[in-house]
Amino acid sequence: MRAQDEKYIAATLGLAKRAEGLTSPNPCVGAVVVKGGRIIGKGYHKRAGGPHAEVLALRQAGRKAKGATLYISLEPCCHYGRTPPCVDSIASAGIKRVVAAMKDPNPLNNGKGIAALKRYGIRTDVGILEDKARRLNEAFIKYITKKMPFVTVKVAQSLDGKIATWTGDSKWISGEESRRFVHRLRAKVGAIIVGARTVLKDDPLLTARIKGRGVKQPLTASLIESKRKPLMAGFNKQPLRVILCGDSKIPSSARVLKSKGGEVIIAKARKDGRVDIKALLKDLARRGVTHVLIEGGGEVIASALEAKAVDKVCFFISPKIIGGRQAVTSVEGLGAGKVSKAVYIRNATVRKLGGDFMIEGYVRN
Amino acid sequence: MRAQDEKYIAATLGLAKRAEGLTSPNPCVGAVVVKGGRIIGKGYHKRAGGPHAEVLALRQAGRKAKGATLYISLEPCCHYGRTPPCVDSIASAGIKRVVAAMKDPNPLNNGKGIAALKRYGIRTDVGILEDKARRLNEAFIKYITKKMPFVTVKVAQSLDGKIATWTGDSKWISGEESRRFVHRLRAKVGAIIVGARTVLKDDPLLTARIKGRGVKQPLTASLIESKRKPLMAGFNKQPLRVILCGDSKIPSSARVLKSKGGEVIIAKARKDGRVDIKALLKDLARRGVTHVLIEGGGEVIASALEAKAVDKVCFFISPKIIGGRQAVTSVEGLGAGKVSKAVYIRNATVRKLGGDFMIEGYVRN
Repeated sequence: MRAQDEKYIAATLGLAKRAEGLTSPNPCVGAVVVKGGRIIGKGYHKRAGGPHAEVLALRQAGRKAKGATLYISLEPCCHYGRTPPCVDSIASAGIKRVVAAMKDPNPLNNGKGIAALKRYGIRTDVGILEDKARRLNEAFIKYITKKMPFVTVKVAQSLDGKIATWTGDSKWISGEESRRFVHRLRAKVGAIIVGARTVLKDDPLLTARIKGRGVKQPLTASLIESKRKPLMAGFNKQPLRVILCGDSKIPSSARVLKSKGGEVIIAKARKDGRVDIKALLKDLARRGVTHVLIEGGGEVIASALEAKAVDKVCFFISPKIIGGRQAVTSVEGLGAGKVSKAVYIRNATVRKLGGDFMIEGYVRN
Repeated sequence: MRAQDEKYIAATLGLAKRAEGLTSPNPCVGAVVVKGGRIIGKGYHKRAGGPHAEVLALRQAGRKAKGATLYISLEPCCHYGRTPPCVDSIASAGIKRVVAAMKDPNPLNNGKGIAALKRYGIRTDVGILEDKARRLNEAFIKYITKKMPFVTVKVAQSLDGKIATWTGDSKWISGEESRRFVHRLRAKVGAIIVGARTVLKDDPLLTARIKGRGVKQPLTASLIESKRKPLMAGFNKQPLRVILCGDSKIPSSARVLKSKGGEVIIAKARKDGRVDIKALLKDLARRGVTHVLIEGGGEVIASALEAKAVDKVCFFISPKIIGGRQAVTSVEGLGAGKVSKAVYIRNATVRKLGGDFMIEGYVRN
């Protein structure tokens, strides 16, 4: 039974993944209805406001759902959100057993859906392939429990940690496969943050450029502190949709952006005049952004790490040595004074992406 | 037949490896004598001046060697060195076929051993598992063909490329398994080079500390340029056996070393007063050093890379972020001006060593 359960839960995770990055601020959820060893209905949550995965799966199964088992990657809801409670639909369809990969982390539901199913006399099992399910919705879990976006830092560096040469050249450090991976990553997040210098130097497009299914473009935000020069250079290709300033004096570049229809947010400044990253992230969470990608440069990444705002890091390491005592490294700032005080990355894994190596892991804050 | 040949050649490589680091300036060589599907003799070259692998294997096989096949990881020699030519012993033992992983790169022999065997009427096959055989003796191959040591650069850095914090702390960036690996690496090389600052700061022991079979300790060399302060700090634990100075003014630390029985070499200086690394390597080659390990710091590694003196790099990357715009990175110097001019590492591979990642590869010079 365990092996069967894992097989069908894996199927729900596969379905859920199809809408990765499209369901925000909701989680990705997949569901299958199984009877007599056959899948008779399947569905996944496509976008916030759309029907839930289990409702679609039950709809497809129709009357055959009576006496069947429902597999689902996340505990069904028992509250009215934008759609009615799913536990009622499950019960009225005549489902006799529900297997869920994990409990709903949403405090509004967390365990209540399972309890409601039990009250209906439905057998329930929770915690099948839970690690994978949690990984899939790691951003949602942070967002819904902490009311803060999940923050991923992305770095493309040489083997020796440089993100540009001493002259400022940075094209291209990572290979094509890594860059494709970054576009898929961008498609998953709600907003991208880069430092002002990165915009000035690289004028990056910061869009998710991938083929295939519809892509929701992330908001793009550049941290501009009050003392910075106007960011005119940053608007050549495509206006950033959000700009965040360290104080209320809006730079002229922001005025230009506004005149082009862009949005300008005045972010809270710290005492030193720099953007208060925690406050900014809270603001983005209020706007429904569950996942933020910080793409550099080294100073912005350092201050996000200092603020203990980073959850995950993703280092693309290209097999080349740039060298240079003046070259900018992936993480600048003041840095740790002792090795024992360095930011420790747990569960670090490596994979090859073309000629590059991608090391990712989670920040122990 | 091919599968059989590979099996026995793999056995010769396994034998050869037992003396890795002990045979310098000779290569590591292993040999087995096979008859009727059974190994009837085996041997490996243990140290320069000692008997060759094939001689030991033939000795073990005794009279049964008649009509047998000799497998060997390197073409047998046909010249008088410290021992008589092996091709004669092979012929007089009655061997009917010789299978070698690769030709002897030594220009004195290169192909002549095989030709001599053929003249004896012995069947020969060369080039079985050649890649592995070449990898095993990569240092010897460089040394014997270019009259220069093979140079490996070793770096222990954080994910973001730092080898120390901004305060200079560097203990310990890499984990225990990585450090064990480094001790095995040190046991393979003939000399270790570090910069003067590394000695001053870390006072490293630079010995191969591994359990098991006899270990030949590498020479330890520190690059001291004439303008440096005396290196007294470097001699607390164990005197460096060789010190190399950029000019003829021997620092007082070198005098102290000499008085303790250490050896001092005056290396050629470049116009800027720094050690001429190429000249130094040539000197080490003349002393029979086939493999040199450069262990840092960032400036020494950068100048070795600039001089196109490095063959291989070995980066131990610890899953921690040190950060810091003032922190020393693994490769300093001036560095590449353009990403396209960076030092490219070919055949880069990664492996996990405890919690660390080791990326190694070869420098395209």
